[in-house]
Amino acid sequence: MAKKSTQQSTQPISADAVRDALRAGEGFDLSAVDPSSTPAFDGDKAAAEALLPALADEASDLQERLYAQSKSGSNRKILLVIQGMDTAGKGGIMRHVVGAMDPQGSEITAFKAPTKEELAHHFLWRIRKALPEAGKIGVFDRSHYEDVLIVRVRGLVPQEEWEGRYAQINDFEQEVADDDTTIIKIMLHISSQEQKDRLMERLDRPDKHWKFNPGDIDERQEWDDYMAAYEAAVQRCSTPVAPWYVVPADRKWYARLAVMNILLAHLRDLDLQWPEAQFDVEEQKARLAAT
Amino acid sequence: MAKKSTQQSTQPISADAVRDALRAGEGFDLSAVDPSSTPAFDGDKAAAEALLPALADEASDLQERLYAQSKSGSNRKILLVIQGMDTAGKGGIMRHVVGAMDPQGSEITAFKAPTKEELAHHFLWRIRKALPEAGKIGVFDRSHYEDVLIVRVRGLVPQEEWEGRYAQINDFEQEVADDDTTIIKIMLHISSQEQKDRLMERLDRPDKHWKFNPGDIDERQEWDDYMAAYEAAVQRCSTPVAPWYVVPADRKWYARLAVMNILLAHLRDLDLQWPEAQFDVEEQKARLAAT
Repeated sequence: MAKKSTQQSTQPISADAVRDALRAGEGFDLSAVDPSSTPAFDGDKAAAEALLPALADEASDLQERLYAQSKSGSNRKILLVIQGMDTAGKGGIMRHVVGAMDPQGSEITAFKAPTKEELAHHFLWRIRKALPEAGKIGVFDRSHYEDVLIVRVRGLVPQEEWEGRYAQINDFEQEVADDDTTIIKIMLHISSQEQKDRLMERLDRPDKHWKFNPGDIDERQEWDDYMAAYEAAVQRCSTPVAPWYVVPADRKWYARLAVMNILLAHLRDLDLQWPEAQFDVEEQKARLAAT
Repeated sequence: MAKKSTQQSTQPISADAVRDALRAGEGFDLSAVDPSSTPAFDGDKAAAEALLPALADEASDLQERLYAQSKSGSNRKILLVIQGMDTAGKGGIMRHVVGAMDPQGSEITAFKAPTKEELAHHFLWRIRKALPEAGKIGVFDRSHYEDVLIVRVRGLVPQEEWEGRYAQINDFEQEVADDDTTIIKIMLHISSQEQKDRLMERLDRPDKHWKFNPGDIDERQEWDDYMAAYEAAVQRCSTPVAPWYVVPADRKWYARLAVMNILLAHLRDLDLQWPEAQFDVEEQKARLAAT
């Protein structure tokens, strides 16, 4: 890690270092993650916010190349899954990370409680329908993981059913990855106290009341069970083709910076070049000049 | 119109004045619109770009209220239709106007040449499927108007068929408006010379080649027919519930500022308030405090 600098507004950050620091998998211990920590970054809030615009510009540029390549036959796409407890900052990631890129390049799907029609199908049915097309970054605000999170905690299906879902999810994600999809799964990890503070803020502010639901407190009362369910999902479904990243999220500015860097690290790995013209450029210039 | 000011970075703009200046309808004469003009705005590029962030913040705030109201049962939504010739700046509107707002509040649908499945249905079938849900701003990048633009110019269906579509579109839009949809239709109007320059730039820059298609020059050769088709669409389908706005677009900065202002004028008219809490706030605070 870099030494603390007095010039924090130019505090550097390594996308690879963030990605390596936050990747989680087999044997993962959620209780060992401090939600207020800032792994692989020594800067403060101002430094993080100063870094974001240039990183967003780079991500936007790489996303446009990804899209351009799809016009020349590439099937590559990205699936970014965002999970977290209520108030963990999913909306902020949508607004400040996804929203910092060209909106034409990404598609956000917010998964709510399933509808009757969705419940009449396999739990992956609605997920498959929302997978991104070639050239796009698909972003899931909640996802199929709800089917081993709230469903497990609330016992919405028998244990033998949700137990089987971890393997089904791994098979599904392997299939998605085989279809040229780069899968990135993010858990925004906040502390119970931070959630309490954020819920209280929603209750204190009339412009935030619409975001509050009395049921949020019911869910909060199952905090330990949710943490166990998250830990199990990370342990059992972090695979080489679809790794989990657990992002400390008590500091919103760190979570946004971290998710942007994890996304960037994956985009850079794709070595995205502008596609070659599939026509004779000089010939078309002459045609155009004659109009 | 305001007098030219030396303090152009604070050049004011009236959303209502922009909307009034650009609304077009019966008897509309497209040839009378100067694509390089900047109606209802006396500032320059720097002034326009300086205005945009605050306007985008206001639009974002109003959009969030629109969404919040949908959680309390409001069915109101907005449909923003963007049409224009190739290179008219549709992508720039998506990036700089739509992209300046929270991505969770809007949904962009880009209509390409219809698929076989789409062609097997009525031309409005794919349009209906993409209509925004309550609380959202749906943005159409091209739209059902292609069915009286390229379809008319290229004779893709017999004249009696496309002639009937103007009335069908008006009926359809009336139905959409009756479903609590605020409809805003934008034509980005560039000059033929400006298109030539922008297409040449795409040919000059290897990072823009992917945006160019030799067919673009074929379409360009039908310029006058396209202008006639646009004029007819504006004349025949600008209705009180679904007006057309013709935006001079040779100056990209003006087109972006104008579209943002037209959108804002409509959002302001909705008088969007934060919804009342549908629970007892103090009771919930006590419940939360006890956790």
